[in-house]
Amino acid sequence: MNVKAVVKALEAYTSCDVADALSKLKVPHGGFLAGLTMWSPKRQDGPTKVVGPAYTVRYVRKNYENEPQPSGHYIDSIPSGSVVFISAPARSINACYGGLMSTRAKYSGAVGTIVDGRLRDLQEHRDLDYPVFARDVGTTAPAETMRVAAINEPVRLNSDDQDAVINPGDILVGDLNGVVCIPQHLAEKVVELIPSQLEADEKVAADIKNGRLVAESMKEHRSGVKKR
Amino acid sequence: MNVKAVVKALEAYTSCDVADALSKLKVPHGGFLAGLTMWSPKRQDGPTKVVGPAYTVRYVRKNYENEPQPSGHYIDSIPSGSVVFISAPARSINACYGGLMSTRAKYSGAVGTIVDGRLRDLQEHRDLDYPVFARDVGTTAPAETMRVAAINEPVRLNSDDQDAVINPGDILVGDLNGVVCIPQHLAEKVVELIPSQLEADEKVAADIKNGRLVAESMKEHRSGVKKR
Amino acid sequence: MNVKAVVKALEAYTSCDVADALSKLKVPHGGFLAGLTMWSPKRQDGPTKVVGPAYTVRYVRKNYENEPQPSGHYIDSIPSGSVVFISAPARSINACYGGLMSTRAKYSGAVGTIVDGRLRDLQEHRDLDYPVFARDVGTTAPAETMRVAAINEPVRLNSDDQDAVINPGDILVGDLNGVVCIPQHLAEKVVELIPSQLEADEKVAADIKNGRLVAESMKEHRSGVKKR
Repeated sequence: MNVKAVVKALEAYTSCDVADALSKLKVPHGGFLAGLTMWSPKRQDGPTKVVGPAYTVRYVRKNYENEPQPSGHYIDSIPSGSVVFISAPARSINACYGGLMSTRAKYSGAVGTIVDGRLRDLQEHRDLDYPVFARDVGTTAPAETMRVAAINEPVRLNSDDQDAVINPGDILVGDLNGVVCIPQHLAEKVVELIPSQLEADEKVAADIKNGRLVAESMKEHRSGVKKR
Repeated sequence: MNVKAVVKALEAYTSCDVADALSKLKVPHGGFLAGLTMWSPKRQDGPTKVVGPAYTVRYVRKNYENEPQPSGHYIDSIPSGSVVFISAPARSINACYGGLMSTRAKYSGAVGTIVDGRLRDLQEHRDLDYPVFARDVGTTAPAETMRVAAINEPVRLNSDDQDAVINPGDILVGDLNGVVCIPQHLAEKVVELIPSQLEADEKVAADIKNGRLVAESMKEHRSGVKKR
Repeated sequence: MNVKAVVKALEAYTSCDVADALSKLKVPHGGFLAGLTMWSPKRQDGPTKVVGPAYTVRYVRKNYENEPQPSGHYIDSIPSGSVVFISAPARSINACYGGLMSTRAKYSGAVGTIVDGRLRDLQEHRDLDYPVFARDVGTTAPAETMRVAAINEPVRLNSDDQDAVINPGDILVGDLNGVVCIPQHLAEKVVELIPSQLEADEKVAADIKNGRLVAESMKEHRSGVKKR
């Protein structure tokens, strides 16, 4: 996979376009990771779009003594172009991501951060104009209750309703609608599938504005859409 | 009931005014449907108010094979002036409402859509300046996991804490505070009850700004409020 | 404690700065009260900061007949400079705070209200430019389901994940990141601890912008930070 070309191509599409393609490829729930919404640069507003390969960080509860202990700080090793994906322990009260981390992530050329947990220092991320998605806000640093156990290893989404895994190198796409995770080996396929479906939907939209029945228009224009 | 006259009268009031009247009429929780908030045209901001009779759509999980299968697409039969109420299966990850649906709903003269589930294509609804309320956002089309089973039949609110039913023709009222459902047979009564309570509250507000005790002012001005 | 001096000093800091100090003082979760976010004057946006001693109000379910029944209306006795903290019964559908209450609270010189439950009349609070934090929005007055049982007594946070108590006189701090509760006897200590940690963080931020490793910079600048 040529990651740069894939990322560039995906920047033209919404997370919903990507999910449509992943649904055709039988990825559960079209790759959607429920519950992760945009907090910076704005709260669920504006044209912000984040696309890039995942750099994953897994926090564990501090008393999990048998979990590994990576050396160095994860934030010092972010590759340019990445989307940082931080996984907090389930139902954490403490935040696991703050302003200094976005300062460094931006310096490293990361394109955004997705926090499966709480973020803090909200105004700082906004002042940096750096995109951050998260489950919720918080005020308190992680050290009291958690620590990093793994970097660039698969992480599981915190969810009562979904069973999803984010692998390092998977392409993450985030915008107003939320976050979608494209398994690395399907990324090029996704880019191939989108144009044909988009074109059909534009024809349906035009038909609707002319008063045609949706059922009829969809039947016509979606029949030729590329399926796989 | 003269629906048009009722709707026109209700447009002058907030969802809270309506809930106050429904509370007097012993409707549980004043008709409030918790968890459904404004996503378009803005996120919980601005003067948007949606009022109209409910046109209901019930989705079921795709593997519920014994549920009925309506013919045609629900979106092609929306009466002008309606509020579309879409009920997704509980805790759905996939969205059940998107941009093409709002394009058609607007063409049909619907005044807004309320999604008891996830909406997708958020920017499209905003670009249409079409009001959409929902439980949350999402990215993924419904077809993988659900399908429509009923149109214009009663639907039950997805809730762990509330037992509420929305009937076709009930008057739905949505604004910044959320969504209220007025049982059809009480709608005219609601319109009758509101002015007297509003007038009392305005007098209390004026008293407060002059330094009068709230307890005292409420006692005086609320004693004459029409109760039923 | 000189409450006025403490409040004035804290107004210069964020809720995260406060939580950092409370973490050093071993207050669980740095005093963060999860789930209470800003609804007015804006939804999670802008420079609003609320700081002041808590004036607490506890609602109970209406059928709890053996709970006490205070005389007068709690809203008529708010001391100037307070933060009103309203505790609703867990998982309430009805709201426990509305526009008339903010009208009076503002008249009394309260600096903001935090609702561990639902607020209603959202536009009225915004029109008053009065800060309100809450768990969620709602439409319906409390009288159907709850009533006040206690004023200026300790209240417990509504939470499945946290065990936190807000005592009258504790200093509440609210901003974009959420709400932090400073136990009264620690408030002066918090004010003493913050400047040294802030100074260190500013040095780390400057280092990061010059390309220095975060791990290295934190090691240097945080070593001298005042711990207690």
